[in-house]
Amino acid sequence: MSEITTLSELFGLVRARIITGLEHREAAARLPVLATRDAQGWPSVRTMVLRGFDAGDWTLDMHSDADAAKVLQLTDGPRAALQFWDAEAALQVRMRAHVIRLPHEEEKALWERVPEAARAQYGTVPPPGTPIASAEAWRPNPRPARFAVLRARVLRVEALHLGEIHRRARYEREEGWQGSWLVP
Amino acid sequence: MSEITTLSELFGLVRARIITGLEHREAAARLPVLATRDAQGWPSVRTMVLRGFDAGDWTLDMHSDADAAKVLQLTDGPRAALQFWDAEAALQVRMRAHVIRLPHEEEKALWERVPEAARAQYGTVPPPGTPIASAEAWRPNPRPARFAVLRARVLRVEALHLGEIHRRARYEREEGWQGSWLVP
Repeated sequence: MSEITTLSELFGLVRARIITGLEHREAAARLPVLATRDAQGWPSVRTMVLRGFDAGDWTLDMHSDADAAKVLQLTDGPRAALQFWDAEAALQVRMRAHVIRLPHEEEKALWERVPEAARAQYGTVPPPGTPIASAEAWRPNPRPARFAVLRARVLRVEALHLGEIHRRARYEREEGWQGSWLVP
Repeated sequence: MSEITTLSELFGLVRARIITGLEHREAAARLPVLATRDAQGWPSVRTMVLRGFDAGDWTLDMHSDADAAKVLQLTDGPRAALQFWDAEAALQVRMRAHVIRLPHEEEKALWERVPEAARAQYGTVPPPGTPIASAEAWRPNPRPARFAVLRARVLRVEALHLGEIHRRARYEREEGWQGSWLVP
């Protein structure tokens, strides 16, 4: 990887690596973490699968069981963070985002495109996270009503590139993503 | 990886994978993410390097520049989450922890063991995250006063193992880590 010297080069690298994550299973951006705040005020973080990226509008889509705790947390308050460390590009990407659930009609349309084998992830009985007496005391019951599409509207991107010289910058939606350098 | 069928097997796998992270650069647990809450109430998440693990007392150590935002956030409130996705073990580990900074005397003693080349990470001028006019308008100025050791005292461990059957369990310090199954 050659040195990244301008704000727009670094922003372009972030965008390119997210696109790579969408297209390649092995890419780091395929599995970002999503951090939320739980009902008791604790930070909560888990790995998600990147399912969509609008590189113009800076939105990222993820899928979830609608009854998972993270969906309830985000319904309470949409403030979230997304992050991935991309070793191949020597790049850390941290994003601040509002995460909302898509309208049900749009979710239903997307459900039609979820492969049969993948649908089992959406709709366990009882819901995910329910305490159970034995490990296998649950069953899949996939159905569209339990398919949630989470759309993260990115408000801030922070990038850290580790090169011969480390470089770090922050980009804000409100500022048209022009970016500014930070001490790494 | 053979199937994990008991609560203690799953807990043992988590412990073993954290130990592997301490010993092997390529292991997933080497680079957990740390989620905090920032001063404005947003979740904030970044990749850390695992520097220590007490497998009996369930504490994890990480190092940071003392002037980094995360250290200030944790001084305001110690509630944090740690997480890693270990593809090799098909295991997600999520932890809730109180993260505190070690007393300065202990930090000074640990500083002596930080290799010379690694010390440059602790003590930039100006501090990390400061806006700067150009990417290189900062310099390293390593010094022990800027070396912070963050100790995460784990309160809860949640493990998700993806096998022929997915298994998920939660373990609480208060309950002596005995664990209970959850719907995955």
